[in-house]
Amino acid sequence: MEDKHMLMIPGPTPVPEKVLISLGKHPIGHRSGDFSKIIAEINQNLKWLHQTRNEVLSLNVSGTGAMEAGMINFLSPGDRVLVGVNGKFGDRWAQICEVFGLQTERITSDWGTPLDPEEIRTKLEADTNKEIKAVVITHSETSAGVLNDLETINRHVKAHGEALIIVDAVTSLGAYNLPIDDWGLDVVASGSQKGYMIPPGMGFISVSEKAWQAYETSKFPRFYMDLGKYKKANAKDSSPFTPPINLMFGLQTALQMMQREGLENIFARHGRLTQATRAAAKALGLGLLAPDNAASTAVTAIQSDDAEAIRATMRQKYDIALAGGQDHLKGKIFRIGHLGFVSDRDILMTISCLEATLTELNYDFESKSGVKAAAAALV
Amino acid sequence: MEDKHMLMIPGPTPVPEKVLISLGKHPIGHRSGDFSKIIAEINQNLKWLHQTRNEVLSLNVSGTGAMEAGMINFLSPGDRVLVGVNGKFGDRWAQICEVFGLQTERITSDWGTPLDPEEIRTKLEADTNKEIKAVVITHSETSAGVLNDLETINRHVKAHGEALIIVDAVTSLGAYNLPIDDWGLDVVASGSQKGYMIPPGMGFISVSEKAWQAYETSKFPRFYMDLGKYKKANAKDSSPFTPPINLMFGLQTALQMMQREGLENIFARHGRLTQATRAAAKALGLGLLAPDNAASTAVTAIQSDDAEAIRATMRQKYDIALAGGQDHLKGKIFRIGHLGFVSDRDILMTISCLEATLTELNYDFESKSGVKAAAAALV
Repeated sequence: MEDKHMLMIPGPTPVPEKVLISLGKHPIGHRSGDFSKIIAEINQNLKWLHQTRNEVLSLNVSGTGAMEAGMINFLSPGDRVLVGVNGKFGDRWAQICEVFGLQTERITSDWGTPLDPEEIRTKLEADTNKEIKAVVITHSETSAGVLNDLETINRHVKAHGEALIIVDAVTSLGAYNLPIDDWGLDVVASGSQKGYMIPPGMGFISVSEKAWQAYETSKFPRFYMDLGKYKKANAKDSSPFTPPINLMFGLQTALQMMQREGLENIFARHGRLTQATRAAAKALGLGLLAPDNAASTAVTAIQSDDAEAIRATMRQKYDIALAGGQDHLKGKIFRIGHLGFVSDRDILMTISCLEATLTELNYDFESKSGVKAAAAALV
Repeated sequence: MEDKHMLMIPGPTPVPEKVLISLGKHPIGHRSGDFSKIIAEINQNLKWLHQTRNEVLSLNVSGTGAMEAGMINFLSPGDRVLVGVNGKFGDRWAQICEVFGLQTERITSDWGTPLDPEEIRTKLEADTNKEIKAVVITHSETSAGVLNDLETINRHVKAHGEALIIVDAVTSLGAYNLPIDDWGLDVVASGSQKGYMIPPGMGFISVSEKAWQAYETSKFPRFYMDLGKYKKANAKDSSPFTPPINLMFGLQTALQMMQREGLENIFARHGRLTQATRAAAKALGLGLLAPDNAASTAVTAIQSDDAEAIRATMRQKYDIALAGGQDHLKGKIFRIGHLGFVSDRDILMTISCLEATLTELNYDFESKSGVKAAAAALV
């Protein structure tokens, strides 16, 4: 049956019908007054979503592009940086730092285990010469379904005084409470195909006053990713380069929907979906990669040596896409995305189909126990 | 009246209904087999459109991003480059070269005047030490409606032997015959909101074998724009980072439409629209910025000190968007885009409305002479 596909992966995430219709509107000129108004509305609503008075910049890049821009605009070759690495994305940010000639120190933990804030504190406290210019943290590590303790890590960065905190919030922005101004986060990067409920194609970066000061002395060459150009354009409700007009039509609609739902409700919904998914997995006798106190609200990684068979059956019989494990976790986990435009109903449906799939694969569990546990968590 | 807006600007260009509907399809996972098939089809059709066996890479960036990628992947800091500058975009590429620390020499001519191939030949012949590593040419200079003589310039570059030819084909790709393999063009960059008939958000780069050899020794740091990653992914019908899935749905549809129309017909149509526009302007007693033998087939720049009044009336009375002049040409020219999804009917309609506008502004010309001249050119 065509067009009945269901995305339960951590990106791209489901897109609401209203947003799809906006995407298909005919473009208008990006230098027109009408488009300026759309930019102004989007920028105001992005600040609302980011809980910040900082400039939030929109780039025509993926989440990786946004993270790269967030690093090369505020650092210089040879700068010392700490990068938290406990999954594929943390590892990617460390690679970018290395490619750009930063003196890169990885603070690692196993995939599935949150970063240890104490280890970061120790490093920062030992840096009495204030050589560390940035700490790069993946808030929600999508590859392992782990939420790192950004609030605590950030407190240690603030105590250091010199280092910027640069955050990959690609799968936490709009899925978990991330009060940028309250916490004083310097650079926060995210991507459109996640909590924003629109397709991929845009990256977003919130930039603090302290980061803008660092921008003044940053020595990496850049043009397309020069965030100063985006800041200047933002002040005129404009864009430095041709923006992805149709994706911005979709973003305008999605942000309006998010405002009607309300930030607290959005965060509560993501928390509820996470609890339901985890309760179901436990009831079905499956292991969870991340501990309860460090669970990503975007994606749950579930352990099973039949991960690929489970994914194949879910896709073939029920047309539900689940994510697999990456790198050394391939075949060892599958991941259920519950990020963005996902409702309680979607999770119960997914768990029901997962139960049927496990039954087909001769797993032994009490019938309906997964759905029951999920439903209980959704109350 | 809502939604009757007509884009007659050189980008964004009109988007066919079929493409708009494709844009609004629900995304599917970009790592799925179904999406791989779409990538494979797009890549094959991009090669057809580019008339090349070279790898054509798709990036989630604007045209400027594509040009930047086209330079930083094949050059190194300090390299000597010649940049043709006879408009805003040539100037931008020179700026990028300077920002990235290239030894940048501008070969200039006035906006509206094509670059002189002889001047470039002289520079290249004088470079007996083969220090010039690239010649950067804007094929169709959108700001002035000028088509530079890329074929001749490229012959001089080929005679030099060492330098790469790097081409901004943003408004010529799909609008003018650009036989990449026949001419042996090394790097050719373009953007989606132009001849491709889809909204902005994607950049494309064709890369020759000689350019890939230069890539091996190029010393600029890069990650998101590292074209080697895109080449590697292309070989697996994949993408190195999350691609703009919905724009690619649109691109798939647009390329199918272009194949049905046929390359020769597409080029002939753009030539016809250009001739019609120019004939009409002349009949109406208006000056043309570019000479007949160097006319861009994407956009015609028409001289008038009433340019802004003409644009305002065209927009307010007829809901047609025309482009204005940029920088020192602001208020001195207006530009009619005839690029991408534009038909003979669209040009006659635009010229009719232009005549009515000029009449309202008390211009003196023989009634219907513009429409008549345009119609004659369309036969």
